[in-house]
Parts: sequence; C-alpha cells; structure tokens
Amino acid sequence: MKTHPLESLNSASPADFTAALGDIYEHSPWVAEAVSAERPFATLAGLHEAMVRAVRAAPGDAQLVLIKAHPDLAGKAARAGALTPDSISEQASAGLDRLNAAEFARFHELNDAYKAKFGFPFIVAVRRHTKDSVLRQFERRLGHSAADERETALAEIVRIAALRLDQRVEAPDKLKLAGRLSTHVLDVHAGKPAEGVGIALYEVSDAGDAHLLARAITNKDGRTDAPLIADRPVPIGTYELRFSVADYYAARAVALSDPPFLTVVPIRFSVSEPEGHTHVPLVVSPWSYSTYRGS
Amino acid sequence: MKTHPLESLNSASPADFTAALGDIYEHSPWVAEAVSAERPFATLAGLHEAMVRAVRAAPGDAQLVLIKAHPDLAGKAARAGALTPDSISEQASAGLDRLNAAEFARFHELNDAYKAKFGFPFIVAVRRHTKDSVLRQFERRLGHSAADERETALAEIVRIAALRLDQRVEAPDKLKLAGRLSTHVLDVHAGKPAEGVGIALYEVSDAGDAHLLARAITNKDGRTDAPLIADRPVPIGTYELRFSVADYYAARAVALSDPPFLTVVPIRFSVSEPEGHTHVPLVVSPWSYSTYRGS
Amino acid sequence: MKTHPLESLNSASPADFTAALGDIYEHSPWVAEAVSAERPFATLAGLHEAMVRAVRAAPGDAQLVLIKAHPDLAGKAARAGALTPDSISEQASAGLDRLNAAEFARFHELNDAYKAKFGFPFIVAVRRHTKDSVLRQFERRLGHSAADERETALAEIVRIAALRLDQRVEAPDKLKLAGRLSTHVLDVHAGKPAEGVGIALYEVSDAGDAHLLARAITNKDGRTDAPLIADRPVPIGTYELRFSVADYYAARAVALSDPPFLTVVPIRFSVSEPEGHTHVPLVVSPWSYSTYRGS
Amino acid sequence: MKTHPLESLNSASPADFTAALGDIYEHSPWVAEAVSAERPFATLAGLHEAMVRAVRAAPGDAQLVLIKAHPDLAGKAARAGALTPDSISEQASAGLDRLNAAEFARFHELNDAYKAKFGFPFIVAVRRHTKDSVLRQFERRLGHSAADERETALAEIVRIAALRLDQRVEAPDKLKLAGRLSTHVLDVHAGKPAEGVGIALYEVSDAGDAHLLARAITNKDGRTDAPLIADRPVPIGTYELRFSVADYYAARAVALSDPPFLTVVPIRFSVSEPEGHTHVPLVVSPWSYSTYRGS
Repeated sequence: MKTHPLESLNSASPADFTAALGDIYEHSPWVAEAVSAERPFATLAGLHEAMVRAVRAAPGDAQLVLIKAHPDLAGKAARAGALTPDSISEQASAGLDRLNAAEFARFHELNDAYKAKFGFPFIVAVRRHTKDSVLRQFERRLGHSAADERETALAEIVRIAALRLDQRVEAPDKLKLAGRLSTHVLDVHAGKPAEGVGIALYEVSDAGDAHLLARAITNKDGRTDAPLIADRPVPIGTYELRFSVADYYAARAVALSDPPFLTVVPIRFSVSEPEGHTHVPLVVSPWSYSTYRGS
Repeated sequence: MKTHPLESLNSASPADFTAALGDIYEHSPWVAEAVSAERPFATLAGLHEAMVRAVRAAPGDAQLVLIKAHPDLAGKAARAGALTPDSISEQASAGLDRLNAAEFARFHELNDAYKAKFGFPFIVAVRRHTKDSVLRQFERRLGHSAADERETALAEIVRIAALRLDQRVEAPDKLKLAGRLSTHVLDVHAGKPAEGVGIALYEVSDAGDAHLLARAITNKDGRTDAPLIADRPVPIGTYELRFSVADYYAARAVALSDPPFLTVVPIRFSVSEPEGHTHVPLVVSPWSYSTYRGS
Repeated sequence: MKTHPLESLNSASPADFTAALGDIYEHSPWVAEAVSAERPFATLAGLHEAMVRAVRAAPGDAQLVLIKAHPDLAGKAARAGALTPDSISEQASAGLDRLNAAEFARFHELNDAYKAKFGFPFIVAVRRHTKDSVLRQFERRLGHSAADERETALAEIVRIAALRLDQRVEAPDKLKLAGRLSTHVLDVHAGKPAEGVGIALYEVSDAGDAHLLARAITNKDGRTDAPLIADRPVPIGTYELRFSVADYYAARAVALSDPPFLTVVPIRFSVSEPEGHTHVPLVVSPWSYSTYRGS
Repeated sequence: MKTHPLESLNSASPADFTAALGDIYEHSPWVAEAVSAERPFATLAGLHEAMVRAVRAAPGDAQLVLIKAHPDLAGKAARAGALTPDSISEQASAGLDRLNAAEFARFHELNDAYKAKFGFPFIVAVRRHTKDSVLRQFERRLGHSAADERETALAEIVRIAALRLDQRVEAPDKLKLAGRLSTHVLDVHAGKPAEGVGIALYEVSDAGDAHLLARAITNKDGRTDAPLIADRPVPIGTYELRFSVADYYAARAVALSDPPFLTVVPIRFSVSEPEGHTHVPLVVSPWSYSTYRGS
C-alpha cells in the first residue's frame, strides 16, 4: 500500500490530499475534504483529531451513511471480491477470509440479525481482535440498544481510521495503537537467562485449533531479539507459547529423565488489552516452572 | 476375565492349577506346570518368583520357544483376530488397536527389521507404555546386540507375566506394579485449596494429538477424590493436565480481565517411571501459576 | 502434672472427682461439683460440655466471681509466685514469665486500664497466643463494651478449661484443640524431595527478636519426621523457618557461586488459626525458591 | 575529595599531574610520574592502563615497596589515625572502622600471621567486599604460596587504583567497576506491578546482624526509581531485602487473615560478582511468593 510523508500531504493540492486519504473513512472522501483547509498538520495525531472532529460535527444522516458504507464482516461482498483493499486486509488479519462453512453461516446469521435490529452493519476494528473475539463482540452487541450501538459503531470507525492512518502516513509521531507481546526465559537450574530456547507462538481458538504466528530463539538475555508481536495491536484472544525446554537442557548436558519430565512447556494466556504490553515470562528448571502476567 | 483366589489355586488339582495359570506365560502352560508341586504359595510374590525361576531354569531352546510364542505388536495376527485375550487387551491399552495406516506401516516395518535381525518378535510390556514410547523402545532396541535383546525379551516377558498375575489372582499382596498419577490445586489468591476446579487428563502423542483419559473435579482439599491413574502402571509417555481456572475464579466472583488472562491452564509433562508416583500440582492465581514434579 | 483416666474419674467418689478437676476452672471447684452427678461420661467432650453448661447455667454473680478469680496476666501475683500451677505454665507458654521491664510496665498499665473500665481482670487463653498477640488482643478488647467483654471472658475461660482438660484427663477422645505446623522441601534442581535439609523454627516478635523453637532435618520425603508443632494449639503470632539451602546443595556437589546465592532461606509467616493446620513448603533450586500457604 | 577533569590533567604541568594522581597508588607517586610523558590520554581507561603498565614494568623490588606501602586492614595505623584519606574511606566502606573487640583481635591475629608468612601486608580491594567477605579472603589467602600472594596483591592494588581513578577523575568513560542491585515486585493477586511497597535493604553478617543500607518505595512499575545499589561495586556478601507486603495489601483493601499470613517478606541472598547486576524480584500474593536470581 502506498504511504505518504506527512509533509507531502501538507503541501499537496486539496484534490491530491483528498485522493490520498479519501479511503481512511470507508467510501467517505468527504472526511478528508473537510479537513484539507486545516493544513498544515504538525503531527499525525493532529490530522487524526481533525478528521474525528469532522465526523463528529457531521449531521446524523451523514454519520449514518458513513456507518452504512461499511461491508458485512465475512459477508457476501467479501466472497464476491467487492471489498476495499483496506477491508480485505483487515478482515484477513482476524482470519475472517478463511472461515469454514459453519463459521461462515454463523457470521451470516449474526449479520442478518444485527442489521434487522439496527438497520446498519456490524462494525468493529477487526485488527484488534481474533475471530473468536469478533464473535463474542458480535453476540454481546446484539443485545445493546440502538443508540449505544450507533455510538459504538462510530467509535470503532474512528479506531479503524486511526489504524489506517498509522499505516498510510509517514509521520514523526504514531497514534499509540501498537501493543506488544513479549517473553523471557529464566533458567533457575543454572541461575541465569536461558539462551537458545526455541519458542513458538500460536493463536488458539475456542475450538482448540492452534495457528502458528511466530517462531523465535532466546538470546543471551533469555529474551527474543524483537518482541513476538509489536508495532500493531495485539488482537484480543487466546495464545499459546510453547517453549522447547528439553532440547535446551539436553544441549547443556543437564541430566534428565527419559523421557524428560518437561519436553515442550505450553503457556496458554489471553490478551485483553490490544494496545497494552503483555509480558509472559517462563521461570524454569527441568522439573518445575512458573509464569505470571509480567511487566 | 475370571479371577482366582490364591487359596483356591493352592488347593486345586495340578490340572486345574495349570489351566488357570497356563496363559500367564504366552502359549506356555509348562511354566505353571513346573511350579504346581511347589504349592502352597503364601503370597502372590512367592508364586511369581517360582514361575520366574522355572523360566530362568529352562533350557535356552525352551526360552526361545517362549519368546517366539509372542505375537507381533500391531501385527497381522492382531488384524486377523488371532491374539490371546491377554494380548488383545494389552495391545489396546497402548492404543495399538487404533493405529492409522502410516503407523501400522511403521510397526510392520519395524517388526520385519527386528525379526530379520534377531529371529524372534519384539516383546515389550505394553501396559507400561504409550504408543510413542513403544516406538522409541522399538527403535532403540533394534540397535542392540542379539544377546542383550534375548535378555531384554525375557525380562519383558517376566513383567508381562507379573501384570497378568496381578489381574488374575486375588491375593493378600500385590506385585508392586502399580504407579500413581495425582494432582493438587492450591489457590494463592484465596490462600487455600481450590475446590471445584475442573480437570481433564489427556495423553499427548509426539504428533500433538490429545486423547482424553479422565475428567475430575477437585474436592475441598484441592485434590481429586481418587488419583487420576492408580492401581496400574502409568504408561511411559507424555500427558497434559488441563485446569479450568477461569471457570473456577468466575464462580468465586473474582474480578478477571475480559477474556481472562488464564482460561484453561495446560500442564504438559512426561512420565518416565510407570511404577512410581508422579504428582503434578498447580499453584495458581488468576494471573500466575507454577508447577513442579511433586511428591 | 498428674493425669487421670476418664474411667477412674467416672468411678471416683464425688469428693475425689471434685478434687481431681476442681482447678479446671480457676479457683472454682463448684463447676466440677455441679457435674459430678451426671457421671459416667462416655467421652471427654461429654464431660467438657457438661461443665460448660454448669458455668452457663450459673447465676450472673457466680460467673462474675469466676471471672474475677483469674490472675492478672504478667501481674504482681505472677511476680510474687502466687499463681495456680496451671496459670504458671500457661503464662510461661506465651513468654509472659520473661518480660523485660518495659514490657512488664506495658502489661501493668493495660491491666490497670482494663480493670478500671470493666471491673474484672483481662482473661485470654494464652496457650493460643504469643506475647505480641496477647498484647494486640489486650489493646483491642479495651475498646469493647462491658457486655461484650464479659461474654468474651467466659468464652476464653471455656477455652482455658478445655485445654486443661485435654492435659489432665486420659480419654479416648481429644477436644480438637490441637493445631499443626509443618513444612516440606522440594528440590527442583534435582526433581525430588530434598533430604537432609537443616531447618530451624523461630518465633519472631514484632520487635524483631527471634526465639528458637525447634530444629529438624528433612527426611527422604523432604518432610520432617514429626510436624514442627503438633498436639497443641499453634500460638497466634509470627514465625520464621530457616532452611540451610547452601549446605544441602554443597553436600550434593551442586556447583554454586561463591558465596552461594542462597545460603539460609528465611520464610516468615504468621499463624492466625491456632487449631488449624499451617503448612509452609519450600520449593527450591540454588537460584530460586517459592513458598505458599499449603494444605 | 577533589576531582579533576581528564582534560585538565592532560594539560597540567608534570608536577601538577603527579600531585593530582600521586596517591592513586598508595604512597607511590612514581607511578603517576612514570606516565606523565605519555599524555594526553583520550580516555580514563587509557590512563589506567598506562599506570598498570608502569607498575608491571617496575623492578620486583619497587613492586615490593609498593605492596609494603599499604597499611594493615583494621590495623594499628587505622586506630592511630595514620591512614591516607583513601584508605580511611575504603576501610570504612566495609565496616572495618567499627569492629568490636573480638573482630579487631581476629584481624590483628590474621595480619600478624599473614605478614609472618609473606613479609608484606594483606591487600584487598575492600570496596568490593563486606567485612565477612574480607575475613573469608584473608583466611583463604593465608593458605596460598608466596608467589601467588605477591601476584594477588598486585592485582588487588590495580583494582584499588582503578576504583580511586573512577572517583578522582572526571572523564567521558568509566572503568566498568560499577555493579548494580535491583528489585521488582509483581503482584499476582491483582495481576500488575505492585506500586507503593516499602522495601528495606540490609547487609547481613554471618553472625546474623543486619545493617540497614537503603529504603525505597516501589513505583508504578513495581520497581524502585533508582537501583538499590549502583555506580559502585556491590560488595561481596549477604543481603536481605524486606518487603512490607501486609501494609501494601491492607492499603488496597485486600482481605487478609489476622494477623496476615505474610507481613514482612525477607529475601536473603548473596552477591558474588560485585561488578555484575544482581536482580532479585518478588512475585507475591497475600498467600505466596517466589523469587529468583533475575536479569
């Protein structure tokens, strides 16, 4: 996706500015148009806030049109290839492009129920969610009042716009939408950070399926060279870290039982704050381990 | 399977005695016959040791016939329904009766290689093993010398006989072949044993498949009313205990994140001593846990 | 102190019965007298309950006389050697016989304030308390109403009587006044119970003084052969267990830093339920440890 | 103590240079003199290495004079006030200025034995040690050979000089002599860093005396605003961190027993690498805690 330096956007013609940012709000270039005259923006945050003010200042009808401009999640438009490029990659981020038949039917059913009740599509910033988490949101929000849902839809639209801006514009600042997921392995048999431990990170669905997200090896500080997830929201959902503990100790010639008491240690945990830092350490010996929500 | 009180066996006619215990050693009633005159036996251990002495005292040829009397593991006899009742239930205990095609082929291949090298079938006391553990034994033992394997085969035959005796004879003593697998949940948020935690025990294969073995709920001592496995060897292999931690804390109205940081806590560990006691406790709060090889 | 089998008490003359149990309630043989005719008692609990009923049924004046029959804690009678033998050993159990001058003055001051407010001496079952705990009770109860304190005094007198009966009478049952303090050392470096760990148990005062209560060595189960405290209430107060971890690992030839990271591990904890079981385990490696209120 | 910018030392007259650094090596201005002509030094490390080369290049006799120029530890010169200012503050750092009579006698005895055996005083960089650690060094080194001790003495003199240079000269670089001692409190009852926990750090002697070194309160990250010890070697020895856990939980209105199971949690540990980073975290609930040598 093409990115734009903030200074270029500041000096572009109004038409070019609107063309560049016309799809930050789904099918709604009028939002970019409305803030063009406020340029220059010193920061991305300033640009974002201006666009939010434009949306909030628009008449209720225009807001409703904006809401209705969004596609169904995992809906027919997606199957027909009729989504905007942003929507395509957003829905894919939560795995909504690879639903099985039953899941597709469930989304279809929820979409219909939601639209029947509220008259507009269900909107959620899917980059902040896993599939299970989207479904839980869907089910809960179906029980809300129309006024609450309209407000929630606008709030989610603002989140979506912020995430799109962060990806589209090169600026000195970021919109603080990025979370972090990290780990750390402490070897209490040797009394030092565990270097060379193989780690795999999986997303785990409620149904028990595990989807590999990342692999890493701990460095001499017992950490991974980079966080397992960074520079983006950590989707709300359940994860499993798997630590290859027996391989690590075998490589250090530590005496183990046969088979080793601990081979691969799985730590399953959930992320509830996608913009927060979730740190999940492993304090381990060949015969014990502990973990906790770290910081 | 019909069981016999030790005192009845002591007072039975030699023919009845041999009939009752003729299949303790596979297709080899001569072992029972050989010890009939040593009756009465005060203990099951005494009977077992007498039979072992008879096997050890037999000529090498007779021992080889005994070895060869055993069926292949997961072999054609099993598929054709031509096993002794003991062998059927023993092979089933390690899941050898539900191999997929690839696994069946692997066993077939190993059986052929083993018999080609040693001239007799591979024998292992499968009640002490899981499928993966049987395969590891198979692969290792293929590399041994013929003399070592003949000795190992006899030792495994003795183990099989002891397990059969323990099942078949009612006696005041047991042959100490039983291991134990237990757990214990300590709630360090409340400072007491965790009552009402749902636990599931799975056998986990090297390929990652999980096979449910048992379910339990912790009692007011944070323990299960009975050990998860008892009164039999705990098969060498890998297990996973899954503790329903979020349900437990939700039922106690403890504030949790949404979703809870810990929902189901999996603890994966291996058993290396089937006749030993493996105790795997969980010390848990909504935000942390630890485990260790307990006692 | 002379003990009496329950059956002897049951068959004794009324005078002998009263003589034997006349001091269960301080200076108040009328309580024993009152229940003499209810004999025989099948259990110690039955005898105790009968005596409690007699006290409860007595007129308020008689109850007040009973309350006033008790000596001051750490008072002048103690200094003058004018206590009953029971009171002497009870006050010694909480260390009230070895107060320094400041502590003696504090007790004196509290005794005076208490008697000035309520008209009777402060009564507490000191075998259930440490010195600090007695002082905390004293300070709290000074703030109570007269009616509450009179009720509390009677309840404490009943506790004192029960503890005296448990010591004085040999019966098939006990009055469930005994608590227990135990520990357990798990070595997660070796993956088994730690055998041969030296343990010292101290009572720790609020002022930081440590008073040695017991020493023990862990056995092959990582436990002490007997609980550190048993068969009596564990006094409410603060304790410190000190585990000689470096000596243990040095004896096993485990490589340690110089000096070892952990030499003696102190675990400081308080007991709040003197009749309960307080279990304080140590899960340890040369570089880490954990503890928790166990069960 | 007066400090000098490195650039001033570089541009000073040879006499001023020697005057400024004449006491870096005890009573031996010839070392500074010897490197004066090598100026300018770009870094403190360069200056230090030049001085070390000068010492190493000196004739054996001169080295011995340098060694003998050092005072006894806790010796008569100290009592008589005849030490150099550097030696005074160095000996005080390890508490050698406040020995009791028995300790003074022990040092005296060791000094005499050492000088009788080796012909020169015992030298150790005391800023890297506690009193107990100095004594252990003393006792061990008495058993060494003369050649080894002469080499060890020179090595310690170099360490002393480096520590003096780091204090005396303002330079862009440091000599990497600084260690660090830090902690971190994680509250697993609340699932976040523990803010507001009172911490006291004590040095603990082998005899059990505790000497308060520092107090701190944890910040919102569960850490102290500054390391407990930093910018200097952490003396080899035993320490105790005491965490006021009950006060912390009481302030958060967490239900506790009476008295609380954990009031003050002591963690006792030893430092063996004075230039390293010793991190000792506390992972705590009202009913449990764990610690480990962190990183």
